[in-house]
Amino acid sequence: MQKYFVSNDDFLNNIITSDDVFHIKNVMRGKIGDLIVVSNENEEYLCKLVEIAKEYVKYEKVEKLINNNELPVYVSLYQGLPKGDKLDDIIKMSTQFGIDSVIPTIMKRSIVKVDPSKIKNKTIRLNKIAKEAAEQSNRLKVPKVMETIKLDKIDFSEYDYKIVCYEESAKDGELSLFKNVVKSLNKDSKICVVIGPEGGIDESEVEYLKKLGFIMVGLGPRILRTEMAILYVLGAISYEMELK
Amino acid sequence: MQKYFVSNDDFLNNIITSDDVFHIKNVMRGKIGDLIVVSNENEEYLCKLVEIAKEYVKYEKVEKLINNNELPVYVSLYQGLPKGDKLDDIIKMSTQFGIDSVIPTIMKRSIVKVDPSKIKNKTIRLNKIAKEAAEQSNRLKVPKVMETIKLDKIDFSEYDYKIVCYEESAKDGELSLFKNVVKSLNKDSKICVVIGPEGGIDESEVEYLKKLGFIMVGLGPRILRTEMAILYVLGAISYEMELK
Repeated sequence: MQKYFVSNDDFLNNIITSDDVFHIKNVMRGKIGDLIVVSNENEEYLCKLVEIAKEYVKYEKVEKLINNNELPVYVSLYQGLPKGDKLDDIIKMSTQFGIDSVIPTIMKRSIVKVDPSKIKNKTIRLNKIAKEAAEQSNRLKVPKVMETIKLDKIDFSEYDYKIVCYEESAKDGELSLFKNVVKSLNKDSKICVVIGPEGGIDESEVEYLKKLGFIMVGLGPRILRTEMAILYVLGAISYEMELK
Repeated sequence: MQKYFVSNDDFLNNIITSDDVFHIKNVMRGKIGDLIVVSNENEEYLCKLVEIAKEYVKYEKVEKLINNNELPVYVSLYQGLPKGDKLDDIIKMSTQFGIDSVIPTIMKRSIVKVDPSKIKNKTIRLNKIAKEAAEQSNRLKVPKVMETIKLDKIDFSEYDYKIVCYEESAKDGELSLFKNVVKSLNKDSKICVVIGPEGGIDESEVEYLKKLGFIMVGLGPRILRTEMAILYVLGAISYEMELK
């Protein structure tokens, strides 16, 4: 069943006014009477289309749905800016695995040049990717993608757990710290995960993060590419906390 | 350090004769004295280039390396044939996560048309992808990609554990069977994992696999795309068995 996230106003007024109007009409070829799922990221309903106009679609709420699909903890990914469209993939994939927010982070070994005048539009585009992925994976909430920021400008004080996925830890055979962290998580814990770009995290950044209380963790003995590491982290948290 | 997998003959003769000669010369711009890692999938050595000829490269073994990077169990993925180049991605990603073998499997809802005359070349190409990914992720072994086969032609009798990643199980809130399987694995267990194509596994295929002793497992509450499911499986096995 196709799901659409709407604003609180639209949710109250039983209406869809965003780009999704185009999607309903031209991609799904929606007709009066068709069923969709509508969510305001707090609750969601099975809904029936009752009017399809040029600029909006009206629906009727048929049945409240129960959605317990959110990971029981909040994971924020500070992803060292990778090359090409890897950030798109990271957002798509980590949304399926339950990420809460993604913060594209400029690190010393990020090769990509960031054009400050384009950050706003890029952030809008990345949030659209997150919304679509959240619809497809049946999330209750849409992960938030924040504006690209430099590592040393970030305030990490709000987090309960702070980890860096660190290849050198893995190479040194460090195989216990990550599991320790996961085992100690509680419902609603806030975890931040720093992952370097393709070239890894610079030694000076490691020292900086250590001083801020970060733990350097290995994710098993194989070398994971930058875009894969967060999936290992989220999958392990889901396995530990969501499966019985 | 760049790694190259070679045949046993080449390993004994301290030589590289495959496509990797091109890679060493033109991609890495290798020079006499450069260090590489050479593996025959059984043991591996740090090696020094001593001769770079047109058709081969000679090296000297400098130091035996210890590589314990293989997952302690053998996971075979029977992947319902997906669209486009998703199979390439699945092989690249699952190699990083420790897969042992991938068998592209024709299922009822596979949309892709398979041209029997092209299967051989396609298999060769997919094995090259696996080899490159294994070099990059520092595996000791290269996962094997078998020829594309129809689901009902497969002999599953060699496996100790047989699971199907089944979306309907996840939707029904089935959250314990996968963890039960993972917790009961032993070193060298052989596990086969069946994952449907984009449209999922057909009901008749589910019944067929159940009769063969397969367990239908859910992988948490969110809907994972076909190419993501194996990463959840492998990540969980690594987390459970490789991390302390």
